[in-house]
Formats: sequence, C-alpha cells, structure tokens
Amino acid sequence: MDPMEKTKVALIGLGTVGAGVARLLLDHGDRTARHAGRVLWLEKAVVRDLKKARGCQLPEGVLTDRLEDVIDDPEIKVVCQLIGGIEPARSIMLRLLEAGKDVVTANKALMAEHGPELCDAARELGRSIAFEASVAGGVPIIANLSTCLSANQVESLAGILNGTSNFILTKMHADGVPYSEVVAEAQRLGYAEADPAMDVDGSDAAQKLAILAHLAFGARVDWKDIPRSGIDTLDLADVRYAREMGYTIKLLAVAELDRSEALELHVTPTLLRDGSPLAEVSGPYNAIRVVGDAVGPLFFHGQGAGQMPTASAVVADLVDTCVGRTAITFRSLELWSNRPARVSSADYADAEGRFYLRAMVDDHPGVLAKITAALGASEISIASVLQHEPKEKGAPVSLVIMTHTTTEGAAGRACAAIAALDCVRGEVVRLWVRD
Amino acid sequence: MDPMEKTKVALIGLGTVGAGVARLLLDHGDRTARHAGRVLWLEKAVVRDLKKARGCQLPEGVLTDRLEDVIDDPEIKVVCQLIGGIEPARSIMLRLLEAGKDVVTANKALMAEHGPELCDAARELGRSIAFEASVAGGVPIIANLSTCLSANQVESLAGILNGTSNFILTKMHADGVPYSEVVAEAQRLGYAEADPAMDVDGSDAAQKLAILAHLAFGARVDWKDIPRSGIDTLDLADVRYAREMGYTIKLLAVAELDRSEALELHVTPTLLRDGSPLAEVSGPYNAIRVVGDAVGPLFFHGQGAGQMPTASAVVADLVDTCVGRTAITFRSLELWSNRPARVSSADYADAEGRFYLRAMVDDHPGVLAKITAALGASEISIASVLQHEPKEKGAPVSLVIMTHTTTEGAAGRACAAIAALDCVRGEVVRLWVRD
Repeated sequence: MDPMEKTKVALIGLGTVGAGVARLLLDHGDRTARHAGRVLWLEKAVVRDLKKARGCQLPEGVLTDRLEDVIDDPEIKVVCQLIGGIEPARSIMLRLLEAGKDVVTANKALMAEHGPELCDAARELGRSIAFEASVAGGVPIIANLSTCLSANQVESLAGILNGTSNFILTKMHADGVPYSEVVAEAQRLGYAEADPAMDVDGSDAAQKLAILAHLAFGARVDWKDIPRSGIDTLDLADVRYAREMGYTIKLLAVAELDRSEALELHVTPTLLRDGSPLAEVSGPYNAIRVVGDAVGPLFFHGQGAGQMPTASAVVADLVDTCVGRTAITFRSLELWSNRPARVSSADYADAEGRFYLRAMVDDHPGVLAKITAALGASEISIASVLQHEPKEKGAPVSLVIMTHTTTEGAAGRACAAIAALDCVRGEVVRLWVRD
Repeated sequence: MDPMEKTKVALIGLGTVGAGVARLLLDHGDRTARHAGRVLWLEKAVVRDLKKARGCQLPEGVLTDRLEDVIDDPEIKVVCQLIGGIEPARSIMLRLLEAGKDVVTANKALMAEHGPELCDAARELGRSIAFEASVAGGVPIIANLSTCLSANQVESLAGILNGTSNFILTKMHADGVPYSEVVAEAQRLGYAEADPAMDVDGSDAAQKLAILAHLAFGARVDWKDIPRSGIDTLDLADVRYAREMGYTIKLLAVAELDRSEALELHVTPTLLRDGSPLAEVSGPYNAIRVVGDAVGPLFFHGQGAGQMPTASAVVADLVDTCVGRTAITFRSLELWSNRPARVSSADYADAEGRFYLRAMVDDHPGVLAKITAALGASEISIASVLQHEPKEKGAPVSLVIMTHTTTEGAAGRACAAIAALDCVRGEVVRLWVRD
C-alpha cells in the first residue's frame, strides 16, 4: 500500500449519522486505510446552516454550504448522502450520480420510494449506490443477502426491522405498561421521533422489507402494497395473554415463498414462542432470520439504529465503494433491476399461518359453542383456548383462541362472523403466530 | 449480461462438500449466473479414484483423475480445492496458485497450519485464496469480518465454532448422559468422526479462532499457541451443577483485547448464562458474537457444517472470486499478512474472568473456611456457593464455588492450593464463566 494514495470523499448532511461518519474517517482513518489500501480523505461536508453546532470537529475548509463544492470537484469520487426525507435528498442524489459520483446512503425512505428511478439512473450512468445503513442499521443484512447467499434460493425471511417498535414492545412486556405511556417514555429517551407514526404503524418496516424482498427474492414490490399493521393499536391485554401462553409479541416483517412459489409479504404484530431467537430480541435491537435452501437458517442480530452502528455501516459501504467491490455487486443486484421479477406476489388472503384471536364475550352458556362453530364454518381448527373467570358475575370475559394453521383470509372471515354474534362485544383481535 | 459469457471452474476432490458444490453449479447454475453476471462452468472435477460412487451426476468428460487437466488448462481460472488434510492438499494448492488459478478452499486445518506459506505465495503470484467455508460452515463470518466491520476496532469475539462438541454438549445437557455415551451416539449419527480428538479436545476450534483472530484483530498467532481445553474431560456432574445455577456449558473460543490492548485467546468449556444468545445455540449449530467499537455487538448464527451449508459458502466464494471481489478483499486481508501484527498476545495468566470451581471435600466442620481462606490468599472473592447434603453421612461432597472476576493465573494458583488441602480429594475442576 502506498500510504500517500488517497480517495477524496464527501458528506452531504452532518446530522447524527453524518457526524459519526466524519469521526470514523477523521479519528480512525487508519482503519479505513487498512481495509481500502488507501486513505479515505474527507474533502467536504455539505450542510445547510454553517452556524449550527456539530457533533464533530472538522479540519478547516471541509465544512461548506455549497453543494457545488462537491458536484464540481471531479476528484471527489464517492459521496455519502446522509440527509433524510425525500426532497431535496432525491434531487441531490440524482445530481451526484450525474456528476459521476458513486453514492452511499442511509436513506431508506428515499430508496423505498424512488428506488427504481435512482437505481436506473445509477446503472445508466455506470455508477453505484450502496445502502447497507438503510436497513437494520449496523446489521450487515444487505451485504449478506447481496453476496453471501448467492448459491441459495432464499425461502423465507423474517425480521425485527423497527427499533422503535421493538423498544416499545419490550417495555410493554417487561413493565406491563400500555402503549401510550411507553411511547411517551420512548420519545423522552430519544428512541421515538416526535411523530413516530411511520415507525409504529408498520410503514418503516414495510419500506425495509420491500428492499430486502428485492434483494433476497428478486421481487418487484412497492412498500405501499405490503399488507401491514403496526403496534399503535396493540392492546396491553394481548401482550399479557401472549405471555401467559408462552409467547412474546414482536412487530415482524415477513417475506416467504408459498407452496406455489409466490411471494407472501406482510408486516404485523406477531406472537413468537418464547426462547425462539427472534422472540428474544429486545430493546432497540434488530434481527433477521433468513432461510436459504442450501445454507439453511441464518440469524443476524445487532443494533438497528443509533449514531455509531449506522455510521459503521455507512463507512463499510464507503470502503467497499472506494475499492471497487460495490461497483461489481451493484451490477448484479436485483434492486429494482430492469430484469423481470423472479417471483409473483401471493394473495395475502391465501397466506398460511396460525392466528391468535381474542373476543370479548358474554359469560353465558353456549358462547364457546357458537364461536367454535363460526371457526368450524371457516374450516379453522383450534389449538388452544384460554378464558379466565369473570372478575364479577355476569361481566363479559376475554376469550382467547390459538388456531392451527389456516389462511389469513379464512381467519379474517371467521373473525367477522364471530364479531357478528350476539354474544360478542366489539371487534375480534387477530394476530399472527409463529413458532 | 451476455448469457454466453462463462468462466470455467474446477473442483479438486468430490467428497461430501465437493458433491454439494457440483450440484449447486450444475442444478442451480441460474443462481450463480445471476450473481456473477456470467455462467460458472464446471469444466473438471479431479478425483483420485474414478470408480468410486459419487453423490452427484456429472456431465461426460468432467470427471478426471489427472490434476494436469486443471493445471494445464489456462481457461480454468478458479479452482475449489476441497480435499482435506495437509498433504497432498498443500502441494496441490501451491501448484494451482503457481499455474495462475485463484483458489477457494474449505480446508481449515491447511489454512491454520500453512497459512503464511500459502497466503504469501498467493500474494506474490497475484492470486487470491477464499476460505469462507473453513470457519463456521454456512455462517459467513469471514466475509463479515473482512468487509462489513471495516470501520471498527473489534474488541472481542466469542464463538461456538465446533459443531461436534456442541452436539455432544447439547445432548449431555438435555439427556443427562455422560460424555462417553454421547460421543458414541454422535459417531453413529455422523456428527462425530471415528477419531473425534481434534473436535473434542479444542484443537479444531483453536484453528478456527486463529484464522478469525488474524482477520478481526490483525493478530499473528499460531493455533498451537492458543491455550485450550476440550469437552473430552468434562464431567456430567459439572453440566448438572451448571444447569442448577442457571448456566449452560459450551465449548467457547474467545479472542478479546485486554485493558492494555493485548489480545487474549483461549478455547475452553465455559459456563454461559441461560438465555444469553450463545447459551441457546444447540446441536450442530455454530454462532459468533463480535463486538466492534462502532457497531456494538453483532451476533451470527447458522449451520456450522454439513454438505449443503458448507457448499453454499464455497459457491459464494466462487462467485466472489469469479467477479473480482475476492481479489480486492484478499489484498487488504490481514491473514498472515506481511504487515506487522497490530496486537501483541496477552499472557493467559493475566486473562480476567469469572470461574466455576468444584472440589470433592470431606463433610467436616471448617472445610469451607479453609477453602475460602485459600481463595482469599489469591485475592479471589466468592460470588456464590453450592453444596448439597451428602448422600450418606460422612461421604465426601461436591463443593461448587462461583468466583467474582479474577485472573486465570490467580484461579489456577488457588485451585492448586485447594487441591493440596487435606480435606480435599483429587483435583479441583475449573471452568470459565461468561454472562
């Protein structure tokens, strides 16, 4: 290695993750130099407001508010685009690609919303986009799906991809505190945004799942078409019943080939049997279980967000891009590829699984018979039933039923039929169950 | 992608893994073609005995017993060297490199024994060696350490790297059957070799740990210098006491920076607290927990051996090598690099940890006082004590002590002092404890 050889890089955006990336480049340049065989030289960091306090010390001349300082410098080969949201992130990324830069990004929403446009532009311009940090933070799931599983047909992928939801669920389980209270605490601790809607309603996990489904299955899926529900409507009662039956509720993102090799996708709160690896993932951690037909099950677990785990992923991408690995990998990546999709999408109603059902029912004779008849009419058989004595005589009680394997459609129809019974109060709660 | 473009590859050895690789190349060439952007064409498979039955169907003209058919064919660019043992594997690998082939191997013993010679030869000849399958089978730990953690100083690495030992330990815990009986069963089931010595005495795990320590820490360590003990001397009594105290015993391979940033390495049966990810790794699975200073803890879990998981790793390496990623990565790899070591080795006696101690002691007054005095003399404080009533009056009893953090050296001295006491029968059992 010639220690003088260097590749100039730039950052767009110097928020939490950007400051972490700058620190790794400036304070630990020996690491990146060792892996890249050259110095990754931080030439420019572009910010909107030069006067704002930053979480890192930059050498003189690096900080700028002029994007042109990067665009017009042909010696800057690789740029980390670390601003969030859709615009101006999208336009800036296109300008960077057009200016001949390879781009590294952590912006999952941008990739999920504008992946086809951005990837097409990069391919046409002979450039690359690296996006490891956009899914599961420090867990290198993109690299593992893109390269390490190349001999496999991936059969299924199930992940805990939203740290905010997982933090909230972990607290609900551990402390027996309802959703609304935990959200407030998560916001105080910085684990939830002021408006956590995208995190807790399943949208964020669906965006990440869409990206992973492209890479793992060669799917072409828009995240908005993925059936999803979040934890924002989860009742503490269901957390308690799940625990009583030996399960933990997680917001699970699932992509799975069905019997006809169509791809079934969904994001939902799911009961996972205690002791299974995904059930044990706690707090702000992320984890993904991938099953390949040759390698069998692989499990990855790590920090799904946070400054330095995300910066670690960004800098690994930066090294890969500078040495030329990303260019090779990006060419064969099935991310909004212009090649035809390798799988069709399954109908969600046909998705097979077990379900947890809970209804508030009158404490009368014959109620269980009516409900089991409604399940039987949808050909759903019962694995277990849980009903406690009413707190006071005559009060409605919660009836919890775990089904054997059925379909999402059948479970939905049965729930509608049960909710329509005279002896049932309100809607029927329906959650997925995975062992 | 031009569907006609192809890279010719060859296999040396067509045993279990070789047959799996051949099947992936022949039956699932679409996968490798998709990832490589070209067809990986199996041109030759070299075996010693043409008449032996094979676990795969090869096209006519592929099977040969002449190594020269590969060596002398300049169109064969990449060769999977899948024969075990040291010779002729070593000589063949050198000949392949000299003939201008890039090599993929699953032979961990060869890499551990002759890594310096082989890596030097590859570097001098401008060739690469890929060896993902040599450690942890289908778990892509080599790729993750080599590329995904490039922004990190790895602080510690702890792994269950020997599937045979883990299968045996899992059975000892689950069925309460002693080592000798489980070994016989493991041999019947094919989970243990006829001579399992290297697997069960810690040598195999030490060879793998040496490779990982090079990659993760820039160490230069010979596996034979790694302090190690195996499960072959493990008493079922200690498995039972561990369980009683909420621990599971695993054969753990550890590489960790100490306070002075020296690298401490060992392979030993270790008590892991139930519920911790490594404690839950069962049967023939492997797992590795790596802590990087930026990314935090990362956990990888998958099948550590077996035909198709290992073949999956070999074929992923083959793709990486054919497309040029391996060449880039191999240049910066710290595997017996000619660059100076980045860490020095710590003295094992200085290694800090908690210990499980068990002694057979006379059931007399004052015994515990003598033993705690011996521990106190080595400045070891006690975290917990377990002693059951003797089965019959006057019979010696097992005294189990869990220490607070101390050093390996102090624990060893204390054990020697305890063993020398009149009231103690035989040696003192000493095992590492990790939370």
